[in-house]
Amino acid sequence: MADVFEQDQTHQTLQQVNQALDRGMFVHVRRMLQDMEPEDIAHLLEACPPKERQVLWQLTDPEEQGEILDELSEDVKDGIVAMMAPEKLAAVTEGMESDDVAYVLRSLPDSRFREVLAQMDAADRHRVELALAYPEESAGGIMSTDFVTIRGDVTADVVLRYLRMRGELPEATDTLYVVDEHNVLIGHLSLATLITTQPDVQIHEVMDDPDEAINVEMDDSEVANLFERRNWLSAPVVDANNQLVGRITIDDVVDIIREDAEHSMMSMAGMDDDEDTFAPVMKSARRRSIWLGVNVLAALAAASVSNMFEDTLDKMAAIAVLMTIVPSMGGVAGNQTVALVIRGLAVGHIGDSNTRWLLSKEARVGLINGLLWAGIIGGVVVLWKGNLMLGAIIAGAMLTNLLIAGIAGVGVPIILKKLNVDPALAGGMALTTITDIIGLSVFLGLATVFLT
Amino acid sequence: MADVFEQDQTHQTLQQVNQALDRGMFVHVRRMLQDMEPEDIAHLLEACPPKERQVLWQLTDPEEQGEILDELSEDVKDGIVAMMAPEKLAAVTEGMESDDVAYVLRSLPDSRFREVLAQMDAADRHRVELALAYPEESAGGIMSTDFVTIRGDVTADVVLRYLRMRGELPEATDTLYVVDEHNVLIGHLSLATLITTQPDVQIHEVMDDPDEAINVEMDDSEVANLFERRNWLSAPVVDANNQLVGRITIDDVVDIIREDAEHSMMSMAGMDDDEDTFAPVMKSARRRSIWLGVNVLAALAAASVSNMFEDTLDKMAAIAVLMTIVPSMGGVAGNQTVALVIRGLAVGHIGDSNTRWLLSKEARVGLINGLLWAGIIGGVVVLWKGNLMLGAIIAGAMLTNLLIAGIAGVGVPIILKKLNVDPALAGGMALTTITDIIGLSVFLGLATVFLT
Repeated sequence: MADVFEQDQTHQTLQQVNQALDRGMFVHVRRMLQDMEPEDIAHLLEACPPKERQVLWQLTDPEEQGEILDELSEDVKDGIVAMMAPEKLAAVTEGMESDDVAYVLRSLPDSRFREVLAQMDAADRHRVELALAYPEESAGGIMSTDFVTIRGDVTADVVLRYLRMRGELPEATDTLYVVDEHNVLIGHLSLATLITTQPDVQIHEVMDDPDEAINVEMDDSEVANLFERRNWLSAPVVDANNQLVGRITIDDVVDIIREDAEHSMMSMAGMDDDEDTFAPVMKSARRRSIWLGVNVLAALAAASVSNMFEDTLDKMAAIAVLMTIVPSMGGVAGNQTVALVIRGLAVGHIGDSNTRWLLSKEARVGLINGLLWAGIIGGVVVLWKGNLMLGAIIAGAMLTNLLIAGIAGVGVPIILKKLNVDPALAGGMALTTITDIIGLSVFLGLATVFLT
Repeated sequence: MADVFEQDQTHQTLQQVNQALDRGMFVHVRRMLQDMEPEDIAHLLEACPPKERQVLWQLTDPEEQGEILDELSEDVKDGIVAMMAPEKLAAVTEGMESDDVAYVLRSLPDSRFREVLAQMDAADRHRVELALAYPEESAGGIMSTDFVTIRGDVTADVVLRYLRMRGELPEATDTLYVVDEHNVLIGHLSLATLITTQPDVQIHEVMDDPDEAINVEMDDSEVANLFERRNWLSAPVVDANNQLVGRITIDDVVDIIREDAEHSMMSMAGMDDDEDTFAPVMKSARRRSIWLGVNVLAALAAASVSNMFEDTLDKMAAIAVLMTIVPSMGGVAGNQTVALVIRGLAVGHIGDSNTRWLLSKEARVGLINGLLWAGIIGGVVVLWKGNLMLGAIIAGAMLTNLLIAGIAGVGVPIILKKLNVDPALAGGMALTTITDIIGLSVFLGLATVFLT
C-alpha cells in the first residue's frame, strides 16, 4: 500500500516526540527523526514551541541539517541559524544548491557571514557569492546555477550518450538548454522531446525557441505570476546580453506564490507574513504593538470626532448608543472592496485601463447596499427608539458611509500602490479610519442639526 | 532578445483593445488576439468589464476557446460557459485533457450538461464522465487520466524505442509509471533517470518505489500541501486497490495553492474567493449584502450593550466619546491572532499537540500589549479629560479586552474548525463581536460603578 500522508500525522508525531522528550528519551527521538524526510522534520520544527524546537534541532542528523534549514520558513530558519557556529554552518551547507545556500545564509550579519565563507572551500565560496550577488526578491535570487547545456549542431543520439556518460542530472531537470559558443541562449529542449526524437535528428531541428527566458533582474513575484500563467515547470534565466546564467524551477516558485498570497492576508491583519506561529512571547508582543500603535492613533482620531459633538451626546444618550453602527458597517463594506482590489492589484488585473470602471462599479455596489441597509437600520431604530427623525438620520449616515466606503475601497489601495506603500499592509487601516471618521461625522453632525 | 514579459503589458494591450473596440475595429482586435497565447487572452478577459468581455470573447479564435476557458478563474469561466450553446461547448472541449474538460463543464446545470455530453463522441464522453465521477475538491477531481505506463521487466533501451515509436508524450510528463499486469503501481521512473541509464539495464533495477502515490479521495488542499512540502513535479494517483488511475501535475496544484491562500484573505474580509473583480454590480451587491447583514447583527449586539448603560452615557458625554477606543483596540489585536491561527491551521502547524501552548503564548502577548496600551491610553485620557478615574477605567478595560482578545483569537478559529465551520470566513467576525461586547461592557460597567 502506498504511503498516504495524513494532515494529523504531524500532530501525532509531535505528541509522541513531546512525550519522549518529557521522559528524557533522547535516543528514541533521534531514531524517530532518522526515519523522517527533511521536509517533514522542518514541518515538525515549525509546529514546535521554542524550547522543544531547540532540543529537537540538536537531535537531528547533521548530514540533513542543511536540507532541513532550506525547507524551514524564514523566521524559524533565522532563529536556528543565529545560534549555529560558523564552521557548523559551512559544514551543513556543503554540497547544497547555490540558491538554497543563499537562502540559508542571507540573514546572517556581515561579519558572521564572512566567517562562514572563510570556512568553505574556494569553489563553494565562489558559487555562494555569485548567488548572493542578486537581490533576494529577484529572478537572480531564486535561480539555481546548476543546469545542463548542449550545442544545437549535434544529434539527439550524441546528446543521449553525453548524458549517460555524465550520469545523474541536476535536481528537477526537465529541460536542456541549447547555447552557442558565447553561452548565449538559442533554444531549449525538453527531456520528453529528446526521448521521442529519432537518434539521427539534429538538436536545432527539434529545439524550441528561447522565448521563455526570464531576465535575471525580474521581480520574483512577477516570475511567479509568469510561471503560474504559462504553466511552466522551469525556465532559463538570462542576463542583459542574453547569456544563460541560471535556471528557475517550479518548486521555488511555489514557495513565492504561497508567500505572496499569505502576505496579503497577514498584512491586512497587521502581521508580518514571516511571523513564526510559535515565536517567543516578547518578540511577538513587540512586533504587534507597532500595529496597535497605529490603531491607537486611528481610534483617537475617531474619538476626537465624537468629542466635537460632546454637547449633542450630552443631550441625548440614544445617539451615543447608536453611533457605533454606521462606522462599523462602513468599515466592513469598505474592507470587502479593499480585499478585492488588493487581490486584483496582486494578480495584475487592475491597472490604468480599468480603474475608472471599477471605481464606478464599487460606488454603485456601495449605493445599492447603502440603500438596503439604510432602510433596514432606519426601520429598526424607529421601532427600537420610537424616534422617526433618529431613524432618518441613521439611514442617511449609513447611505453616505457605504457609498464613500465603496469609493475609498478602490481609491485607497490604488493610491497607496502609486505611492509605493504596500496596499495590503496599510489599505485596511487607512480605509477603516476614513469610514470611522466619515461615519461618525455624518451621523453626529446630522443629529446635532436635526435633534438638538 | 528574449521576450521578457511585463506586468504593464496587459494594461497597454487592454487600452489598445478598448480603443479599437470603441472605433469598431473588430478585425484589428481579432488579429491582435490571434497573436496572443490563450493564457494571456484569459488574463485580458479577467481584467475586462462585463460588456467588453463579451465582445472580446466573440472575437477569440474558436480553436483556442477551450484552452482559454481552462485558464479563466471559476467565476469568469462560469459566466461565459452559461452563455454558450451545448454543441459549441462540445466542440471547444474536444481534444482537451479530461480534468480540464471537467473544470470547464462542472458548473453547468444537469440538463444542459447532458446536452453537451450528447454532442461528444463516445470516447470523449466516457473520459469526461470518469473525470466528473470524483468530487471537485479531491485528488480525483484534479488528476489527468493521460499518462504513460511501462513494465518493470524490460530494458531502458526497449522503453526508449517504445517512446520514440509512440511519439509526443502527454503534457508535462516528467515521469513514467511502472505497473504490473493488474495495473497496480509498482514504481516510477523519471525521464532524467531513464536518459542517464545504460540501455541494457532493466527498469525494475533503477525505478523508484511508489511511496509517493496519492489516494484518489485525498482532499485537494492536502494534495497541494504534499506537493509543496515534497517539492514534487507530478505524482501518481491510485485507488483503494493501489491501481493507477491518474496523475496530478504541479501546474494544477499551483492553482490550488493560490486559491487556498487567497481564500483565507478574501474570506476574512467576507468575500467569496471566486469573486470576479469586474462582476456586474447587482451580482456583487447581492453577494456582499449577506456579509453586511451578519455585521448588522454584530453592530446591533454592540449597540444593545451600550443601551444597557444609557443612564451612564446620559450623565457623562466623555464616556460616549471614549467608548469606541477599547473595542477598536481589542478587535485589531484579536484579529492579529486570528490571522496567525488561520494560517497555522491551513498549513497544518496547529493541532491538539500545541493548542494549549499557543493559547498561553497569545494570552501573554495580550497581557504585555494590554499593559503597554492601557498605560498609554490611560495617560492620554487623564491629560485630555483631566479625570484620573476615567483614565484608570479605560486602562483597566483596555488590559482586560486585549487579554481576552488574545485568548479568543486562538480559541475562536480552533473551535470553529472543530465545528466544521470555515475559520477564515467566520473567525474575524466572531472575534470582533466578542471584543466589541467585552470591551464595551467592561468600560461602561466600570464607568457606571465608579463614575455615576
